[in-house]
Amino acid sequence: MKNRRDFLKIGGAGLAAVASTPFLANATNVVKGKKIPEDLTILLQGDSITDAGRDKSKLGINDTAGLGRGYAFQIVTNMLGSQPKANLQFYNRGISGNKVFQLADRWDEDCLSLKPDVLSILIGVNDFWHSLKDYKGTAQVYDADFRKLLDRTLKALPNVKLIIGEPFAIKGGKAINEKWYPDFPEYQKYAAAIAKDYKAEYVPFQKVFDDALNVAPVSYWCPDGVHPSMAGGYLMKEAWVKAFNRLF
Amino acid sequence: MKNRRDFLKIGGAGLAAVASTPFLANATNVVKGKKIPEDLTILLQGDSITDAGRDKSKLGINDTAGLGRGYAFQIVTNMLGSQPKANLQFYNRGISGNKVFQLADRWDEDCLSLKPDVLSILIGVNDFWHSLKDYKGTAQVYDADFRKLLDRTLKALPNVKLIIGEPFAIKGGKAINEKWYPDFPEYQKYAAAIAKDYKAEYVPFQKVFDDALNVAPVSYWCPDGVHPSMAGGYLMKEAWVKAFNRLF
Repeated sequence: MKNRRDFLKIGGAGLAAVASTPFLANATNVVKGKKIPEDLTILLQGDSITDAGRDKSKLGINDTAGLGRGYAFQIVTNMLGSQPKANLQFYNRGISGNKVFQLADRWDEDCLSLKPDVLSILIGVNDFWHSLKDYKGTAQVYDADFRKLLDRTLKALPNVKLIIGEPFAIKGGKAINEKWYPDFPEYQKYAAAIAKDYKAEYVPFQKVFDDALNVAPVSYWCPDGVHPSMAGGYLMKEAWVKAFNRLF
Repeated sequence: MKNRRDFLKIGGAGLAAVASTPFLANATNVVKGKKIPEDLTILLQGDSITDAGRDKSKLGINDTAGLGRGYAFQIVTNMLGSQPKANLQFYNRGISGNKVFQLADRWDEDCLSLKPDVLSILIGVNDFWHSLKDYKGTAQVYDADFRKLLDRTLKALPNVKLIIGEPFAIKGGKAINEKWYPDFPEYQKYAAAIAKDYKAEYVPFQKVFDDALNVAPVSYWCPDGVHPSMAGGYLMKEAWVKAFNRLF
């Protein structure tokens, strides 16, 4: 009801429709009493968790197949459906297997040229995971590479608003073993510190999943501990949208 | 808060997690104070709107790629995410271009053998649309075929709960023209009457979209008037979940 009252205060078109269609009660670009700017371009960047099987030949704005089947798709469907007046424009440019330096390699084309107003980055699990195999990077390299990428981003796009997702590893998942500890949490500490230093909204995905394990097992939320199920993607979407709403 | 109180009454595991994770406040199999039965098998049937590009080699329960990118996917992600204790099991068996008689042709394999507890059917737009081309069926054929299909279903699955979606055509969409009227609404009348006669929950998709046109144009919700956008899929999901919740 709060949203509804706030909407009434702001007024605007579509009130009759809102009243007759209860699920459109918040179908305005009003979130918690604050107005979302219109025409935002929102870029979702990351690795396989963001990629989630997207069709990489479909690069247009709000392209259904180009958004993949992961948390990104859930974010976009939810925000487009519930904020129809905001004219939100989403891109997904996650690529499976990416580490920070691989984002940097494709950053001109896959970030800067898109001129996002909001940039969401979820990166780090491979920076650690691949170090168990042939990758030579460390947590310090992750930290330095990530800061360099953000410096470059802010130089080109000084007004971009940032969302940084916490890289996560869910204990009990098939790909997670004792080799992940205590090293992987170091990457999470760096991600949190970077978010603070760069005034990004931080999405605490590890806590989201850890809490969810009290409700259903890891097989339900994230079978291998790295790649979320549809239900896990729902948790991520919920947490991400909260972070997004804090930006405005 | 109501859900929360009802959950407290029913009790159960996971309370601490629910309290610490606000978006899991309704992460139980409790909807509006009623308990959803556990282990429900839910089958989504229909035409291209349900199909929505699903990978037809992926036929398993809750298969991400097998669910397509339409309202079905949005239903499943939302229900699995928000009802993690219910062990819901979804199948999508929509096939593009289908009319009622084509559902009947594949009904043994694509419905009866799956033994759904809840069967959702959205069918009818092609029964009309293709009659503008080479299909000889009429609204009366649609009505008779649909009733025959449901009689057969209830004979095999006497306890199945039914959801029937209203076939819809959104005015202003590129595929919709004056040839659709007054004939197409006849199919909608039959669908509504069938839902009533067979005690199905009816999802009034036409009204959902018509109301939404007061908030954003047809190009936003359903560009060709037949196939919803992601935002249109969100509206359908919201309306479908309401109908689902009325079943219990």
